[in-house]
Amino acid sequence: MKSVDQHLEDCLAGIETLSPLELRLLDAHGCTLSEDVTATWNLPPFTNSSMDGYAVRAADVAGASESSPVSLPVVGDIPAGYSGALALSPGQCARIMTGAPMPSGADAVVPVEWTDGDIVQVSITRPASAKAFVRYEGEDAAAGDLVLPTGTRLGPQQLALLAAVGRARVLVRPRPRVVVMSTGSELVEPGEPIAGGKIPDSNSFMLAAAAQAAGATAYRIGFVPDEPKQLITTIEDQLIRADLVITTGGVSVGAYDVVKEALGRMGTVSFDRVAMQPGMPQGFGRVGPDATPIYTLPGNPVSAFVSFEMFVRPVLRRLQALEPLHRPTVRAVLKTAVQSPAGKRQFLRGDLGVEDGRYVVAPVGGPGSHLLAGLANANCFIVVPEDETHVAAGDAVTVVMLERRAG
Amino acid sequence: MKSVDQHLEDCLAGIETLSPLELRLLDAHGCTLSEDVTATWNLPPFTNSSMDGYAVRAADVAGASESSPVSLPVVGDIPAGYSGALALSPGQCARIMTGAPMPSGADAVVPVEWTDGDIVQVSITRPASAKAFVRYEGEDAAAGDLVLPTGTRLGPQQLALLAAVGRARVLVRPRPRVVVMSTGSELVEPGEPIAGGKIPDSNSFMLAAAAQAAGATAYRIGFVPDEPKQLITTIEDQLIRADLVITTGGVSVGAYDVVKEALGRMGTVSFDRVAMQPGMPQGFGRVGPDATPIYTLPGNPVSAFVSFEMFVRPVLRRLQALEPLHRPTVRAVLKTAVQSPAGKRQFLRGDLGVEDGRYVVAPVGGPGSHLLAGLANANCFIVVPEDETHVAAGDAVTVVMLERRAG
Repeated sequence: MKSVDQHLEDCLAGIETLSPLELRLLDAHGCTLSEDVTATWNLPPFTNSSMDGYAVRAADVAGASESSPVSLPVVGDIPAGYSGALALSPGQCARIMTGAPMPSGADAVVPVEWTDGDIVQVSITRPASAKAFVRYEGEDAAAGDLVLPTGTRLGPQQLALLAAVGRARVLVRPRPRVVVMSTGSELVEPGEPIAGGKIPDSNSFMLAAAAQAAGATAYRIGFVPDEPKQLITTIEDQLIRADLVITTGGVSVGAYDVVKEALGRMGTVSFDRVAMQPGMPQGFGRVGPDATPIYTLPGNPVSAFVSFEMFVRPVLRRLQALEPLHRPTVRAVLKTAVQSPAGKRQFLRGDLGVEDGRYVVAPVGGPGSHLLAGLANANCFIVVPEDETHVAAGDAVTVVMLERRAG
Repeated sequence: MKSVDQHLEDCLAGIETLSPLELRLLDAHGCTLSEDVTATWNLPPFTNSSMDGYAVRAADVAGASESSPVSLPVVGDIPAGYSGALALSPGQCARIMTGAPMPSGADAVVPVEWTDGDIVQVSITRPASAKAFVRYEGEDAAAGDLVLPTGTRLGPQQLALLAAVGRARVLVRPRPRVVVMSTGSELVEPGEPIAGGKIPDSNSFMLAAAAQAAGATAYRIGFVPDEPKQLITTIEDQLIRADLVITTGGVSVGAYDVVKEALGRMGTVSFDRVAMQPGMPQGFGRVGPDATPIYTLPGNPVSAFVSFEMFVRPVLRRLQALEPLHRPTVRAVLKTAVQSPAGKRQFLRGDLGVEDGRYVVAPVGGPGSHLLAGLANANCFIVVPEDETHVAAGDAVTVVMLERRAG
């Protein structure tokens, strides 16, 4: 059997980051920047007031106090967005609003709270030191400065900076478009009757959501029956909007292994038995004129989920130039002994928590790869290496954290 | 001045979780469940095979070995989704596929790998113990069992479980609809020329993205000039699709404080000076016929961001019934001494990392509340309490983690 590490290496081989795309700012939220962004102009682009108040020469108000206010004539009124060119002479002041350009001749702002607020002749009761409440042109960044390097993931603060340097659009790695479909003649849509050996399709919902959580745009096709021709037609129809295709089911060794049968005809897809539990039957390769990557995961829900997390999520992150490729892992104290098959890496569903300042983890649900209720209560995988068949309670194990803790 | 804690308490007062809404499964991804979901039927709903192989009576194959295979007649072929009612007599077997219903009379599955795969008379070379490779009806959950309690946040695994119990739609707390607008006559759209005292609007992009990151659906209105009538009209027009309104700017004490002037007329909005830096001028209240909450944040970008994180994000989380309301905090060793004003809680932008197994944090950018480049490089806030004016290098500080670390 093929090792987990070898299969992961094979899955990532030849996967390159998607070609960059220019997107509007809010459409680029969460994407990875694919250009070095420099400041278009000085930031702030002009010297301006950080308070509502009066632009003054600091020297003129140096002696101001409650008992001995300084009185200055108000020679102008400067609102935000003012495009005039006011100049102050010594002994003059101008009313000024937050964000408005400082008049020439002024070097400080007296907040309105330190004055009587008069608009003709203002009485100032506290001195302002030179440079007080003034934001100087270029003090955040100078024109030409690199403000966001390529590879930066764009969150709210980065989008604000892009806007501030005048960018309406930005070059980013786009979200991978992922087409997800289940296979199986036993499947019906959730909500339809399940009489007669049917069950609702659940994998395609799970994997579409998991792809979304990994930053992709997911298209859930639903399910196709165990008919190779129909599967081929469905995949071919979807390739036009797919950067990556995920199927589940039909990859074992039986008579109805529709995915193996169909994809054997279509492209260069190989099927392997990987030394892991759950998730042994795996397939991946390329299909269609653009050699679109396809990952054919097993049909058991838990197997499909573990396979997605271990093999497909890293691929989706590489397509987006996101680092690190893998989930964070921690070492935790195992609360209950577990068994594991020899020669396979086991991924048990676990509940990770903190007790007395250290990580502890307990298995949840049973080991069966169809047990969705257990999976839904897990927040991590407990990893038992290939060469261990038993881990005792109290031993340390490696845990893959599936979701961030609170926050 | 009002304390930060008091203002937070006031902002959260009267905020109730949004009324639940029935959504399709993938639309409910990331939402909070608002009903107790019980299993509609036993899970699995019928006893079925976990392998492609042959359904047998374990007793019939107990003596099978490579040297002495057991040969059984294949009396049927059971694909997935089979709705017939096959019954095995002793000494018979049926070919069966993964997920197909077990025939009555069988109690084990022999994987096809342990046979010669014949479809008329199969030769079996390994015994299967009773119950081997059989998934029993109800072993994951019994009909009526509570499988997901109200309050569960719906991720990929939870959506799979909902599908498996036959749910096409589910009752959840909807995403809050947040309308975001900047105010200021100095604002232009990013990409437009900034000559004459103009600057690009950046706050509305930042806050729309921050609201999205907090689980909301955000509508960026852009900006309105410092005209109270236009601001009132804009807000009134948007209330129809708003669960919450955010404005920035116009909340100080100057002559052009459009937000204060406009909202003083419209509803019950109060304006306060909060003992924090940045972010001192704050306003919040209710507007319109549905008493829609409105948060009027200061216009400085860093002030607006800190205010959103401290006051609005907890409100958005409560609207969605998400716990905990607040970002995680850690204690970290400060790498560079910082100053802080007396009587105010300061939120400095910081770069949090781990060195030698402990958290360390350094301030990034300057203290100015207009410094977007520093904000874009920060991954945390360093919190300096109201009663401290100096923290020395090497001292421990509380840090608010803004985003999860890698993963």
